[in-house]
Amino acid sequence: MEDKRIYALPESYAMNGGEGTYSYSQNSNYQRGVVEIAKEKINEAVANHFDIKALSDSLKPVCIADLGCSTGANTFISVQNIVEAIEQKYKSKGVNAKIPDFLVFFNDHVSNDFNTLFKSLPPNRQYFAAGVPGSFHGFLFPKASLHLIHSSCALNWLSKVPIEVMDESSPAWNKGRIHYTNAPKQVVEAYSTQFAKDMESFLFARAQELVVGGLLVLFVPAVPDVMSNSDTFTGTELDLLGSCLMDMAKVGLVNEAKVDSFNVPVYYTSPKELKALMERNWHFSMKRMETLNNQKKHLNLRNPSMRSLYLRAVLEGVIEKHFGNEIMDELFNRFSDKVAGSSCFLNPETEKLIILFVLLERNN
Amino acid sequence: MEDKRIYALPESYAMNGGEGTYSYSQNSNYQRGVVEIAKEKINEAVANHFDIKALSDSLKPVCIADLGCSTGANTFISVQNIVEAIEQKYKSKGVNAKIPDFLVFFNDHVSNDFNTLFKSLPPNRQYFAAGVPGSFHGFLFPKASLHLIHSSCALNWLSKVPIEVMDESSPAWNKGRIHYTNAPKQVVEAYSTQFAKDMESFLFARAQELVVGGLLVLFVPAVPDVMSNSDTFTGTELDLLGSCLMDMAKVGLVNEAKVDSFNVPVYYTSPKELKALMERNWHFSMKRMETLNNQKKHLNLRNPSMRSLYLRAVLEGVIEKHFGNEIMDELFNRFSDKVAGSSCFLNPETEKLIILFVLLERNN
Repeated sequence: MEDKRIYALPESYAMNGGEGTYSYSQNSNYQRGVVEIAKEKINEAVANHFDIKALSDSLKPVCIADLGCSTGANTFISVQNIVEAIEQKYKSKGVNAKIPDFLVFFNDHVSNDFNTLFKSLPPNRQYFAAGVPGSFHGFLFPKASLHLIHSSCALNWLSKVPIEVMDESSPAWNKGRIHYTNAPKQVVEAYSTQFAKDMESFLFARAQELVVGGLLVLFVPAVPDVMSNSDTFTGTELDLLGSCLMDMAKVGLVNEAKVDSFNVPVYYTSPKELKALMERNWHFSMKRMETLNNQKKHLNLRNPSMRSLYLRAVLEGVIEKHFGNEIMDELFNRFSDKVAGSSCFLNPETEKLIILFVLLERNN
Repeated sequence: MEDKRIYALPESYAMNGGEGTYSYSQNSNYQRGVVEIAKEKINEAVANHFDIKALSDSLKPVCIADLGCSTGANTFISVQNIVEAIEQKYKSKGVNAKIPDFLVFFNDHVSNDFNTLFKSLPPNRQYFAAGVPGSFHGFLFPKASLHLIHSSCALNWLSKVPIEVMDESSPAWNKGRIHYTNAPKQVVEAYSTQFAKDMESFLFARAQELVVGGLLVLFVPAVPDVMSNSDTFTGTELDLLGSCLMDMAKVGLVNEAKVDSFNVPVYYTSPKELKALMERNWHFSMKRMETLNNQKKHLNLRNPSMRSLYLRAVLEGVIEKHFGNEIMDELFNRFSDKVAGSSCFLNPETEKLIILFVLLERNN
């Protein structure tokens, strides 16, 4: 291969595996809500923009990838929706339309629990399934080998924590916090710059992997344009978790320097910012961009222990890597207590996270 | 899809996962020997029969599958040999030959430890990697989507134990044994019939999945034509394991009826038998068939505990499914003792298992 390919990046974050109490598969109701409202968007995207003429040779399989699939049922529902939408498009062409085979690639970090994912594959699925381990910030598939790429609730994960926020000598050093909300603007900028770089490498890799005319269907957790970051519920939720860690540092349960050097590699973009980043990439035409209303976003919010479980399923891997596993129960018990003691955290109206739907088509 | 596809069969046998003492990855020296002697055969097969003209569009990736890959390094060595052989073929066409991307599918049962497999993928590999869970006795890939399929030391596993050998009312009931060696001829026939059915469904599925001209490269553990089954070392090794189970039944450590109903779903074909089965399938032309000499076959044999580990890495999954895990240490300690007490088991000359290399090409 003439170009230097990045097959995997060193940083690797995965949701909790298995099917137990703390697993992602048992604690991803919020993400399920996104999948449900996504169905209509997927149907429209395929109906209006998926070019089945380019695939008229029924010997060619339709190849689909779900990036950042994790382990739960959500990925199977999304994929089912996509496959059905494409089948529908073939059927609408008349009774003689031969429906091709489907090959679906489920991608997530190498540390994702693929064993659990594979064991829970729907037995009656009408597609062939494969797992692809690796970071979606690098190349994952051969050139021009995919027809549709989907990713839901995954692009908010950065490829890594921006270096500056861990550097004591930098104005962006994020001492005493684990996220950019309520932090100096240099910290916010460091996160934002990292997100821009990650989106660039993400779009570049996807542009190689998609056939001309192929679709990139993204559902990206974000915050509204008008908000400051500290208004975001999820932001302040991470602040709350950070304050639990600081409390634990004060009583000697964790090392304070360890807390200073810990930052959650998650960034919530805004519609304006994401639009600008998408438009900067000339490989794609933006066909749609809109804000979705996740009806299920409040499901986890009213009960402090459910809220704690939800966050633990998502963050335990990252926290364990930095602090080890011993602090986990204590940390999330404290988090749960703080949530219970804070009325604003149990009021769903304060939850401001939105989901951006973006549909891109690979240019000629 | 118009034809009824079998995406996965209920029976699922996998080698021991992880990288611990009893893992397949630590106890597959015998299979490693096969991989080493296979290299030359793979090179010849690609050089003489892999049609790169059909792939001259460098935008098309070369798609390769390894069926029954398990978790150890063996699968990566085999795949590396295949990719290098194909690259070499492109390079031999001149400096301007553009080498296409490679996509390699690693397949094994859904119970295989794909997490360990993915974590041990070579970081500098020159191919894209995907895992495909499911039985190779059914369909695993879209129609005409693969250029080369490889399988080493896997086709000796049957899709299931033949029903008759577990049926008390059948003349093929295999009471007091766990395998067909030293059994009535009805038992041997039941195994042989199952193998024939399995090969038929294996070849039928592969014929759909390969492009015209695609290659099927098989390395199949077998016994020589001239032997009776009871002459086979591996056969009598399974007998020895069966006798350990019967001993344990006698002292009440396992239920005797449980032993009667337990049979190892492994069959060693012969060159003559395999040739006849291959020739029965009109989708393929047989390009080569020969017996290989595995120099490493004696590596595990001289030391009773290594021999026990080797067998345990391969059979623990099947035994656990039937008896539970509690009996495992006792069983393999007893096995190790019996091997130590039997001079013939430590004499490598009595090991008669051979490896058959078969090269098939998908017909027009």
